[in-house]
Amino acid sequence: MIDALFFPLAIGAALIGLLAALIFARAVLGHPVHNELVRSTGKLIQQGAMAFLRREYSILAVFVAIVAMLLAALIDFNLLNNVHIAELNAPVQARLGVGPWTALAYVIGAVGSGLAGLIGMWIAVRGNTRTTTAAEEGLNQALRVAFNTGTVMGLTVVSVGLLGIVALWLIFEDPSIVAGFGFGASSIALFARVGGGIYTKAADVGADLVGKIEAGIPEDDPRNPATIADNVGDNVGDVAGMGADLFESYVGAMIAALALTAVGVAYLGLDGEQAEVGLVVLPMAICGVGILASIVATTFVRTGDHASMSRLLWALRAGIFGAGALALVGTAVIVLLLELPFELFWVVLTGLLVGQVIGTATEFFTSYEYRPTRWIAAQSVTGPASTAIAGVAVGLGSVVVPVLAVVSGIWVANELAGLYGVALAAVGMLSTLGITLATDAYGPVADNAGGLAEQARLAPEVRERTDALDALGNTTAATGKGFAIGSAVLTALALGAAFTELAQVSVLELTDARILIGLALGGMLAFLFASLTMHAVGDAANAMIEEVRRQFREIPGLLEGQPGVEPDAARAVDISTQRALRAMLLPGTLAVLAPLIVGVVLGPEALAGLLVGSIVTGFLVATFMANAGGAWDNAKKWIEKGHHGGKGSDAHAAAVVGDTIGDPFKDTSGPSINILLKLMAVVALIFGPLFM
Amino acid sequence: MIDALFFPLAIGAALIGLLAALIFARAVLGHPVHNELVRSTGKLIQQGAMAFLRREYSILAVFVAIVAMLLAALIDFNLLNNVHIAELNAPVQARLGVGPWTALAYVIGAVGSGLAGLIGMWIAVRGNTRTTTAAEEGLNQALRVAFNTGTVMGLTVVSVGLLGIVALWLIFEDPSIVAGFGFGASSIALFARVGGGIYTKAADVGADLVGKIEAGIPEDDPRNPATIADNVGDNVGDVAGMGADLFESYVGAMIAALALTAVGVAYLGLDGEQAEVGLVVLPMAICGVGILASIVATTFVRTGDHASMSRLLWALRAGIFGAGALALVGTAVIVLLLELPFELFWVVLTGLLVGQVIGTATEFFTSYEYRPTRWIAAQSVTGPASTAIAGVAVGLGSVVVPVLAVVSGIWVANELAGLYGVALAAVGMLSTLGITLATDAYGPVADNAGGLAEQARLAPEVRERTDALDALGNTTAATGKGFAIGSAVLTALALGAAFTELAQVSVLELTDARILIGLALGGMLAFLFASLTMHAVGDAANAMIEEVRRQFREIPGLLEGQPGVEPDAARAVDISTQRALRAMLLPGTLAVLAPLIVGVVLGPEALAGLLVGSIVTGFLVATFMANAGGAWDNAKKWIEKGHHGGKGSDAHAAAVVGDTIGDPFKDTSGPSINILLKLMAVVALIFGPLFM
Repeated sequence: MIDALFFPLAIGAALIGLLAALIFARAVLGHPVHNELVRSTGKLIQQGAMAFLRREYSILAVFVAIVAMLLAALIDFNLLNNVHIAELNAPVQARLGVGPWTALAYVIGAVGSGLAGLIGMWIAVRGNTRTTTAAEEGLNQALRVAFNTGTVMGLTVVSVGLLGIVALWLIFEDPSIVAGFGFGASSIALFARVGGGIYTKAADVGADLVGKIEAGIPEDDPRNPATIADNVGDNVGDVAGMGADLFESYVGAMIAALALTAVGVAYLGLDGEQAEVGLVVLPMAICGVGILASIVATTFVRTGDHASMSRLLWALRAGIFGAGALALVGTAVIVLLLELPFELFWVVLTGLLVGQVIGTATEFFTSYEYRPTRWIAAQSVTGPASTAIAGVAVGLGSVVVPVLAVVSGIWVANELAGLYGVALAAVGMLSTLGITLATDAYGPVADNAGGLAEQARLAPEVRERTDALDALGNTTAATGKGFAIGSAVLTALALGAAFTELAQVSVLELTDARILIGLALGGMLAFLFASLTMHAVGDAANAMIEEVRRQFREIPGLLEGQPGVEPDAARAVDISTQRALRAMLLPGTLAVLAPLIVGVVLGPEALAGLLVGSIVTGFLVATFMANAGGAWDNAKKWIEKGHHGGKGSDAHAAAVVGDTIGDPFKDTSGPSINILLKLMAVVALIFGPLFM
Repeated sequence: MIDALFFPLAIGAALIGLLAALIFARAVLGHPVHNELVRSTGKLIQQGAMAFLRREYSILAVFVAIVAMLLAALIDFNLLNNVHIAELNAPVQARLGVGPWTALAYVIGAVGSGLAGLIGMWIAVRGNTRTTTAAEEGLNQALRVAFNTGTVMGLTVVSVGLLGIVALWLIFEDPSIVAGFGFGASSIALFARVGGGIYTKAADVGADLVGKIEAGIPEDDPRNPATIADNVGDNVGDVAGMGADLFESYVGAMIAALALTAVGVAYLGLDGEQAEVGLVVLPMAICGVGILASIVATTFVRTGDHASMSRLLWALRAGIFGAGALALVGTAVIVLLLELPFELFWVVLTGLLVGQVIGTATEFFTSYEYRPTRWIAAQSVTGPASTAIAGVAVGLGSVVVPVLAVVSGIWVANELAGLYGVALAAVGMLSTLGITLATDAYGPVADNAGGLAEQARLAPEVRERTDALDALGNTTAATGKGFAIGSAVLTALALGAAFTELAQVSVLELTDARILIGLALGGMLAFLFASLTMHAVGDAANAMIEEVRRQFREIPGLLEGQPGVEPDAARAVDISTQRALRAMLLPGTLAVLAPLIVGVVLGPEALAGLLVGSIVTGFLVATFMANAGGAWDNAKKWIEKGHHGGKGSDAHAAAVVGDTIGDPFKDTSGPSINILLKLMAVVALIFGPLFM
C-alpha cells in the first residue's frame, strides 16, 4: 500500500531536518568572533542562560518523574480501579494494564521538548556574538547569521516533534498513548514559557525602571547589573519559551488529528481501513513536506546592504510565503496519492491562510506604520495615563480580526471535514513551522546582538545594523505571537474535541448548568493565570530593582562608569532565576490540577465546558495582551524616531511607561495563556477515562 | 384564589414606594441652602446635567420611535411573513398580528426608565447643595440628606419598574409582550450608561490631567473649566447611568421569570394552572415586599458625629442587611401562602447571598483596608508602570470569587428550581434594590457635595465631613458596581435561557461549530465594546484637555485665580455632551445589531452561543475593569493618607496615573458591558421568532 510508504518518508524528512540544522549550526559557529569584549560578554549570557536551564530542568526532572508515575498508576494500570473497563471504547480498553506506555510516551515527549529547547538556546547564545561580528561586515551577513541561528531552532523543534509522533504511532498505533507525548511536551512548555516569561520580564522591567528612568543610563548599558540578566532573558523567554510553546502546538495538532481519524472517516463517508490509514498518515506527511519546504525556503532569505525596513521584512516573508507555497504543492500531491477527498487540501490551505491573516492583523495593530500604534503615540502627549488608556483600547479592539479569522477557519474546516478538519487546519497552519519559528527566534538573537554591540562599544554603524535587525525582530516577534496564539487555539480546540469523543459525553447542552459552570470557570482560569503571572513579574521586577539600586549604592564608581569597575551580573541573574522558578509553581500546578478537579468533582460535561471557556476567553485575553504590549512598544519607537517631540520629551517618557506596562503583557502573561489552553486540553484527553 | 390578591398588593407596594420617594424628596428639598456660592455652583451643575439629559433624550426619542416601528412591523404584525406561524409555540402564535402591543410595551419601558432617570437626576442635582449645607451642621445630618437623595432615586426606579411589569402582565398576560418593556428599559440604559459613562470620564480624566498634573491645582478647583463638567458627570454617569442599568436588571429578571414559568412548573413537577399563576405572581410579590422592606430599612441608616469610616459603612450596611432580612421573611410568608414548594425560598435567599458575597469580595479587592490595594500602593514606589502592572494583576485576579459565587448560585438555583430558579435568584438578588441603589446613588451626591464645598471655599470641617462621606461613597460605589455586574449576569443568563425556550432550539451541542462560533463572537463583542468605549474616553478626554488648556491660555488671570475671572464652564460641558453622545452611537448600534445579524445569518444556535459567550467573557471583563479601577483609586487614597511618602511623593504621582487609567475602566467600559449582555439577550428574546 502506498499509504505505508509515507511513514518512512516522514521519518526521512525529519532526519533531513536534523541534518540541515546541524549544517546551519556549523555555519553559525564557523563565524569568528574577533572582539574580546563581545566574546566575554557573550560568555556571561551563555553562562546565565545555561544556569537557568540547568535549574529549570532539575525542577522539571522531579515534576516529570512524579507525573510519569501517576500516569503509569492511574492510566496505564488503572490501579484505582475506578474505570469500568467494559464501559470504555475499544482503543482505551485495549490499552489499559498492558504496560506503562503512556507514561513512557510522556517522558519521551518531555525529553524531546527539553532537548529541542536546549539545542535552540545553545545555538542562540552563540549566534548572538556571531551576529554582532557579522554586523561589522554588513547587513546581509548579519541577517544571514541571525536567521541561520533561528533556523537551527526551528528545524530542531519540528524534526524532533515529527520524529517522536511517527515513531510512537508506529510502535503503539494508539492515539491515547501518543497523547502522552503531547502531555510531556506540554509540561516542558509550561515551565519554559511561564518560567521563562517571568524571568525575561522581571529582568527587563527591573533593568528599565532603574536604568533608563532613575539612573538615566541607556538600555543595555554595561554598568547596569541587570543588563546581562535582560539579555539572558531574551533567550530564556523568547527562544526557549517560544520554541517549547510551538513544539507543543505542533505535536498537539497531529495528536488531535490522530485521535479524530475515526470521526473524520465517518464525516467524510470514507470506506474502511485504508481510508483510515490515509487520514492517520496525512498530517505526518504534510509536516514532513513542510520541513523540506522550510529548508528550501531558507535560501530565499537574503537582502542587500542599506536595505529598508520593508525590504528586510520582505526578505523574511519571501521565506515564509515560499515555504507555504511549496508545502501546499506537496500537500496536493499527497492528498492525490493517498486517494483522499480533495477537500482535505482546502482544509490545509485554510489553516495556512488563517495563520497569515492573524499575522497581518497583528502587524496592523502593533506596527507604527499604521494608525492604531500612531494614535497611542499621539495620546502620549497628555501623559502616561493617556498612553495606558489608548494601549488598552487598541489591544482590546485588536481581537476582532483574529477571532473572525479563526472562527471562519473553524467553520470552513468543519464544513469540509468535520472535527478532523479542525485538527487538520491546525496541522496546516503549523506545517511550515520550521521557517516560521526561525523568523521568531531570529528576533531575540538580533536583539542580543545589538546589546552586545552596545556593551562592547562597537562602531556606530554596527549598532545601526543591529538596530535595523532588531526593529525587524520586533515586528516578527509580534506577528509570531499572534501566530502562536492562533495555533494554540486551534490545537486546544482540536484536542478538546478529541476529549469529548473519547469521553463519549453524550449530552453537552449549552443550557445545561454544568456546561455553563464549566464555561465560566474556564474563562475565569484564563484571567487568574494572567493575574498570577502579572503578579509574579511585578514582584520579581521589584526584587531586581532593589538589587540594582543596592549595587549602584554599594559598588563605588559603578554608576560613574569608572574603568575596571563591574557590576555583579551573576547576582542579578540569580534573582531572576530564583524568582521565576518559584513564581511558576502556582500557575503551573493550577493548569494541571484544574481540569482534573473539575473532571472528578463536576464531571466530564463541566470539563468540556471548562476547556471551551478557557479557549474562548484565553484567546481573547492572550491576543489583547500580546497586541497591547506590541503596540505600546512600537508607539515608543515611533516617538523615538522624532515624532511628538522625540526622545527626551514628555510624550517619550509617557511612552516608556506604556512600553514597560506592555512588557509582561506581551512576553509573560499573554503567551503563558497559550500553554494553559493546550495543557488543560491534553490533561483532559489523557485523564479522560478517569471521569467517565 | 389567593394568588390573584398578590397583584394588587404588588401594585400597592409600588405606589407606596412612589409616595415614600415623594416624602423623601420633600425632606431633601426642605433643607435650606444658605451659601450663595454653593447655590450658584449647584445651579451650574443642574443646568449642565439637564442640558445633557435633554440632548440625550431627544436623540433617544428618535431611536425609540424607529425601533418601535420596526417592532410593530416585524414582530407584532410579522409583515415580512418570514415567520411560519404554525411552527411557533402557542403564546407567540396568539400574539402575532393582534396589535402593536410589543411596540407599545417597548415605548412604555423606554418612557418609564427615562422618567426614573430624570427624577433620580433631578433630585441628585438638588440633593448635592443640600448635603453641603447639612455638612455645616454635622456628619449625621449630611449623611441623612445624601442618603435620602439616593433613596428617592432607588424607590423611584423599583416602583416604576414593578408597576410597569405588573400592569403589562395584567393587561396582556404574555411574557413576550412584557419583554418589550424590558427592551425599552434596555434602550435607555444603553444610552444612559454608555453615553453617561463616556461623559463623566471624559470630563474627569480631562479635568485631572490638566488640572492636577499640569497646572498643579487641586481637584474641584473653581478655576478649572472642566470642574463643573466633572461634577455634572458624576450625576450623568453614576446616578442616571447606574439607575438605568439596574432598572434594566430589575425588570429583566422579572421578565425572564415570567417567560420561564412553564419550565418552572415542569421542573418542579407542579400541578396545573394554579401553580403556574403562583410562579407568575411570585417574583412580583417578592419585589413588592422588597420595596416595603427597603422603605422600612432606610430608617436604620444613621450615625453619630465623628463616626469612623467603618461606623459609616455599618450605618449603610444596617439598611441593606435589614432590608434583606425583612424581604426574606416576607418571601417565606408569600411562598407559604401561595402553597409553592419551599425550595423557592432558598432560591431567593441564594440570590441575595450571591449579591452579598460579590459585594464583600469587591470590597476586599478595592478597599485600602486590605492587602491587594495596599500592594498596588507599595508597587507605586517604583513608578507608574509598576502601578499599572499591579492594578491589572489585582483586577484580573479579582474575578475569581465573583465567578465562584455566581456559578454556585446558578448551580443551587438550577438544582432547586431549574432555569426558572436562575431567574428567581436574580429577582431575589435585586429584590431590595430600592435601598441598594440608594447607597449607590448616595456616592455621587456626597462626591458633588464635597466638590461644592471646595468650590465655595467653605470651612475645612465641612470639607472633612463631605470627604468622609465621599470616601464611604467610593466603597459603596465599588461594591455597587460588583452588584450591578452580578445582577446583570444573572439577568442576562435568565433572559438567554428564556430565548432558547422560546426559539425552541433543540440542538445546542457544545461541539457544534455554530455554537463555538457564537461563543467566540460573543466574547469578542465584550472586548470590542470595551475597546470602543475606552477609545471614546481617550479621544473625548483629549478634546477636553485641549479646551482647558485653551481657556487657561486665552482667559487672562484665570489660572492665577484673579477675583471675578471665571472659566467658561458651559463650553466644557458642551464638549463632554457632544462627544459622549456621538461616541455612543457605534457601540450602541453594535449591541442592537449584533444579535440580529448573528441570528439571521448564522441561526438561533449561534445566537445562543453569542449570548453565553458575551455573558461569560463580559462578566470577567466587567469585573476586571471595575475592580482594577476601584483598586487604583483607593491605592491613591492610601498613599494620600501618608503612606509611601504621601501626597506629593513620586509614589503619589504614580498612583495618580493609576487612578486616571482606572477611571474609564471602572466608570465607562466596565459598566457598559452590563448593558451589552442584557441588551443582546433581550433583543434575542424579542426577535427570536424571526430566527426560527
